[in-house]
Amino acid sequence: MKIAVTRKEHFNAAHRLHNASWSEEENERVFGKCSNPNFHGHNYELLVTLVGEPDRNTGYVYDLKVLSDTIKEKIIRQFDHKNLNLDTPFFKDLNPTAENIAVVIWNILRKEIDLRFDLKIKLYETERNFVEYPAA
Amino acid sequence: MKIAVTRKEHFNAAHRLHNASWSEEENERVFGKCSNPNFHGHNYELLVTLVGEPDRNTGYVYDLKVLSDTIKEKIIRQFDHKNLNLDTPFFKDLNPTAENIAVVIWNILRKEIDLRFDLKIKLYETERNFVEYPAA
Amino acid sequence: MKIAVTRKEHFNAAHRLHNASWSEEENERVFGKCSNPNFHGHNYELLVTLVGEPDRNTGYVYDLKVLSDTIKEKIIRQFDHKNLNLDTPFFKDLNPTAENIAVVIWNILRKEIDLRFDLKIKLYETERNFVEYPAA
Amino acid sequence: MKIAVTRKEHFNAAHRLHNASWSEEENERVFGKCSNPNFHGHNYELLVTLVGEPDRNTGYVYDLKVLSDTIKEKIIRQFDHKNLNLDTPFFKDLNPTAENIAVVIWNILRKEIDLRFDLKIKLYETERNFVEYPAA
Amino acid sequence: MKIAVTRKEHFNAAHRLHNASWSEEENERVFGKCSNPNFHGHNYELLVTLVGEPDRNTGYVYDLKVLSDTIKEKIIRQFDHKNLNLDTPFFKDLNPTAENIAVVIWNILRKEIDLRFDLKIKLYETERNFVEYPAA
Amino acid sequence: MKIAVTRKEHFNAAHRLHNASWSEEENERVFGKCSNPNFHGHNYELLVTLVGEPDRNTGYVYDLKVLSDTIKEKIIRQFDHKNLNLDTPFFKDLNPTAENIAVVIWNILRKEIDLRFDLKIKLYETERNFVEYPAA
Repeated sequence: MKIAVTRKEHFNAAHRLHNASWSEEENERVFGKCSNPNFHGHNYELLVTLVGEPDRNTGYVYDLKVLSDTIKEKIIRQFDHKNLNLDTPFFKDLNPTAENIAVVIWNILRKEIDLRFDLKIKLYETERNFVEYPAA
Repeated sequence: MKIAVTRKEHFNAAHRLHNASWSEEENERVFGKCSNPNFHGHNYELLVTLVGEPDRNTGYVYDLKVLSDTIKEKIIRQFDHKNLNLDTPFFKDLNPTAENIAVVIWNILRKEIDLRFDLKIKLYETERNFVEYPAA
Repeated sequence: MKIAVTRKEHFNAAHRLHNASWSEEENERVFGKCSNPNFHGHNYELLVTLVGEPDRNTGYVYDLKVLSDTIKEKIIRQFDHKNLNLDTPFFKDLNPTAENIAVVIWNILRKEIDLRFDLKIKLYETERNFVEYPAA
Repeated sequence: MKIAVTRKEHFNAAHRLHNASWSEEENERVFGKCSNPNFHGHNYELLVTLVGEPDRNTGYVYDLKVLSDTIKEKIIRQFDHKNLNLDTPFFKDLNPTAENIAVVIWNILRKEIDLRFDLKIKLYETERNFVEYPAA
Repeated sequence: MKIAVTRKEHFNAAHRLHNASWSEEENERVFGKCSNPNFHGHNYELLVTLVGEPDRNTGYVYDLKVLSDTIKEKIIRQFDHKNLNLDTPFFKDLNPTAENIAVVIWNILRKEIDLRFDLKIKLYETERNFVEYPAA
Repeated sequence: MKIAVTRKEHFNAAHRLHNASWSEEENERVFGKCSNPNFHGHNYELLVTLVGEPDRNTGYVYDLKVLSDTIKEKIIRQFDHKNLNLDTPFFKDLNPTAENIAVVIWNILRKEIDLRFDLKIKLYETERNFVEYPAA
């Protein structure tokens, strides 16, 4: 049976929900206060899970210190204290919903993590709203 | 791959565990202090998860503000600050264990949520005791 | 300088807010859904703080295992899985608000703890509502 | 002895730390990534504490439902899903540090709460950084 | 559909990560500060999940009080306030990583729990590092 | 009025409670399982609070990034993943109770922080046991 190992990191960012092909009124109607043109922000909590078999010599599925370093270098460095819409290349044409942020993070990390490990992302936008990709 | 989105809400309620076809002694033997005839209570934390694919226009699997409103209207309004045994129609002949409360909530919400979304309930009775329906 | 040491315990109880000298309508007007005659309930989190000087031989201000045992014997045993209004002697003529519960607990524990220690109670009724007695 | 009662609310906002009388380089040197001109953001947790004596008839120091409504009307409505620098009148010439936000909130609420109650603000900018005004 | 029920317990223990067939230098290189020969320690949070169908008479999948007692007798009694490497028989030739501790706990509890229930272990070593066995 | 600002950090360490002038039996009688000669351990959560007036130019009482760096350099570096009894110079003749650890940390940090700021330490040994020095 396989084991899942998880590392939690966090970043603080500004964003707005916005579909550029819609009018401001349509954005306001669909996204409400989340579409504020001056942005709002969140403390995002990011959980990255790898699933695999423990190494016989180390007893690790994956060294979580190494995973933490990878998350910090590839995700936190470009998302923390940033405006997701303006300061990152990912959300020029993609709405930075928690769903889309999770998929972007998964796509970045999937290139860094050996394919013998399954990869899952859980992202808290607030304590009461969170998403998981892929769904269990 | 599909994405899971979750909204957390809460309600405070009284209940007792009780099988009406048993004697008080039998209820006391099986349910212990949870069968106190004068009731006890909990701060229930309720997590409702929907699984589906994000909408191309909004980037949402499901608008969590809409989900929050649905939970409040269909669940919180009739469970919060209530006696689950006496004040709701669900537990006249059904013991209000966390398991049964979760199934009742699932059955109520399943009628409100489009069937293209999978629906899961996680219910904390205390910080140390919780249930999930359906099991992952 | 003195040191404060704190132990956290919890109990689950039913209660209703109610002034017996008022009509049900007046209770409903003032206490709203908290006055439900069939009760509701909470997971109460109780923090008991003692302030004093550490003992030279043990390095303890107070052995928190002993404090935990005292809280369990004097408070938890009579409050946990109980109806505060009906099952305890304290709230026959006293409304079981968080404020009054905290004062009742302080009065009980004050008799058990040597007077050279200051005693403070912090009581969470929900994660968002709590009281402290005496106020800092 | 007096009792302290506390209500917790939250708001999500964007901000940047910035002293308008300084160059961008000076702002960058002092505030680091917190001075990002495109803003970042936080889930702010706000705890409002009132200290007073419980009312003999209600057992309340202050009805926390009323306090919650006041906080929502006077604070949350103008801070939640807003850019603190651009969307509120308070931080045109005042840097929106957690310290200054707490003082602004205290000044707003002080006008709403009867002066027989002491008023304290605790504001979490992140789970690891928070401020209290006035200090205990 | 089946229901999952979970009980959370905790234990505080010392450990070091160490492969006895390696030199101290190799252990230091691979495990870093976790290989400190004088040990370090953690507050482990242990979640035990059983999956099954609720009993028609009780409404329980499994009585969580009974599960709590089983965890305390079979796990907590021999792990709490212990040195996992020196005081338990499990980690003489097995590195006490969170992964291996979770598998050891699963193997112990699997003998205690009727096989009609699926068994899952989630173990937090810190708030930011945790493992699940078997993986979902 | 002054403002309090707080930074939270953490360290994982092993320790045992032990009075070297007592027999093992006496240590066992007083400290119970906390006196295990092979040590046990904790995830310590450390909150460091400074009280002062905000600077007019920055709006900071104290830059919490600077405070974080000071705590990491002076405390975390010598306490994290260490055996408090064996690996640090502080607890050769001093029992590493939470009370004494808090006083040791206060004494170290007091030399690093300008005396115009009041300094307070809050140390969680477990989620249910914590100490504060000096007491509020």
